[in-house]
Amino acid sequence: MKLGRILRESLQGMVPRLVVVQPEQKRVIDLVTAEYNRLIRTGATANAADRLASALYPPSMADALAAGPTFLTAVTRSVESVQDERALLPLEGLSWLAPIDPPVLRDCLAFEQHLHNSFTKVLGKVPEQYYQMPLYYKGNPLTLLGNEQEVPWPDYTQKMDYELELGFVIGRSGKDLAPKNALAHLLGVTILNDFSARDIQVHEMQGLLGPAKGKDFATALGPWITTLDELDVHNLAMVARVNGEEWSRGSSATMMWSVEEIVAYISKGEGIQVGEVIGSGTVGFGCGLELGKLLQPGDVVELEVEGIGILRNRIGTPATQGWMPIKRTPATT
Amino acid sequence: MKLGRILRESLQGMVPRLVVVQPEQKRVIDLVTAEYNRLIRTGATANAADRLASALYPPSMADALAAGPTFLTAVTRSVESVQDERALLPLEGLSWLAPIDPPVLRDCLAFEQHLHNSFTKVLGKVPEQYYQMPLYYKGNPLTLLGNEQEVPWPDYTQKMDYELELGFVIGRSGKDLAPKNALAHLLGVTILNDFSARDIQVHEMQGLLGPAKGKDFATALGPWITTLDELDVHNLAMVARVNGEEWSRGSSATMMWSVEEIVAYISKGEGIQVGEVIGSGTVGFGCGLELGKLLQPGDVVELEVEGIGILRNRIGTPATQGWMPIKRTPATT
Repeated sequence: MKLGRILRESLQGMVPRLVVVQPEQKRVIDLVTAEYNRLIRTGATANAADRLASALYPPSMADALAAGPTFLTAVTRSVESVQDERALLPLEGLSWLAPIDPPVLRDCLAFEQHLHNSFTKVLGKVPEQYYQMPLYYKGNPLTLLGNEQEVPWPDYTQKMDYELELGFVIGRSGKDLAPKNALAHLLGVTILNDFSARDIQVHEMQGLLGPAKGKDFATALGPWITTLDELDVHNLAMVARVNGEEWSRGSSATMMWSVEEIVAYISKGEGIQVGEVIGSGTVGFGCGLELGKLLQPGDVVELEVEGIGILRNRIGTPATQGWMPIKRTPATT
Repeated sequence: MKLGRILRESLQGMVPRLVVVQPEQKRVIDLVTAEYNRLIRTGATANAADRLASALYPPSMADALAAGPTFLTAVTRSVESVQDERALLPLEGLSWLAPIDPPVLRDCLAFEQHLHNSFTKVLGKVPEQYYQMPLYYKGNPLTLLGNEQEVPWPDYTQKMDYELELGFVIGRSGKDLAPKNALAHLLGVTILNDFSARDIQVHEMQGLLGPAKGKDFATALGPWITTLDELDVHNLAMVARVNGEEWSRGSSATMMWSVEEIVAYISKGEGIQVGEVIGSGTVGFGCGLELGKLLQPGDVVELEVEGIGILRNRIGTPATQGWMPIKRTPATT
């Protein structure tokens, strides 16, 4: 199953809707409309159908998943029942949102080739900690972009880059998991483009607090989530193209830490929560930094992953210069 | 005004409730109950009173604040109307939650004395980037503790520490703010204890992705939020006690970056969102690392901030050892 989110015009303006995507039929199914119509056909009143359908399919995918197995059961039933044209929309021309609104966004660096290529350039070596545990940083879950949404270019960077990653979507909360139990907590996989402002990122990471402004302005997710039963998470071909030209090619088969180990490690002590997204980290040669290349305003970046689809984003125009902090002089020496 | 969250027993078990705290009267006002009773007195039916009161005061403080000025106006009205005993609860014996459930949790290192004390110990010097901009890392908003909640001790640490910080609560979203406009976006201040597992924190920070397991297991917030009109955010006395003994004393007057600069900087490019919490960073000498001390299981840590109150948490028992990642051998050299 492929699950996504789109914006639809309503009496209140544009509103988010959960959809099931059927690429081979070139259509999506608006779940709340499909379920409303199904309930009406079973004899529900309009008010009751609206109330029940809206409760099953709220605007937030994370909220919907929080219902547990009830959600996927309902989706199957809603999709099987589709008769009404109002629930069916052509795949072309939709306004996509990130397929999920995670309560927290973590990102690992699980591909050794990327570690080697990146850290050798910046530090001269890969920190040994990467071989001891699947290190991760936390991204900004409030600046997610969907497929076809434009990437803002902040005033503090001149070096814009992409990163070709998988986004693992957690379908069930858990804590202190062992790797052998971890896959049961994974709903599916989406594509993650971890846009990066390399100049400020490298600068700020020397403060040892991890990337912040270097990453926090934009992360693209999408075009949708493919559930685990439809793909082999351990062997997914991954490709990046810029303006139609292939820049990167890799596979999830080259991860140094498996998704099971990553999920288990993150669950230690703190737990994982339904609806959260965990990035795989960049596949080897999966970003401009590793290739000696940078993005320019107007560039179109396409990330394609086997079994999912293509996540496409155009790079926006640099913002005009705003306020910047004034450098301090150390007082304590 | 002082705003908090507690757990109350209901027919569905324990449920979160928003409260106004009146420490001098040794009581709190359960807002949804107060508003329900007010509406009933105006002639509303029970169903309508329940619907309206629940919409104004959902279980989430971040959701409530998202209503904008409507929220504080409603709180004032609900509080002024209190007549019914069922809305009034004694301050003693309550089950506190973190006063807010932020959509993202960021934490700065804005006190130079702490930078100096900590980084000199670990690195031999303070990275120069801290003098160029208010660096921050992102914490885990899913492991927040309220006042009197026990701090879990994960299996991966033997060095537990506290950090005495302020938590700035954003009341209004904004983007690309200048410092002179920043305070209008601040709702108030709470106390933040950024519990830290020093051994793994120092280890993982050498990977340059910032703290993760070293911080992500627990952050305490509370006991409540004091709105900005009731305190001088630029001059708040801050004290930490462990088992009743004073370990730390400082003031928000010693911040190297002002709260206005921090809020403006974070808003650059990505924006700040209503309900988010931004930590000030640890005040100078505000943690055990700076004092050569560590916490032990059973220790009680009290953080007290002028104009707010006391945030008290007991340290739990170390967890039994679970699964740990198996070290890898570098393949790419």
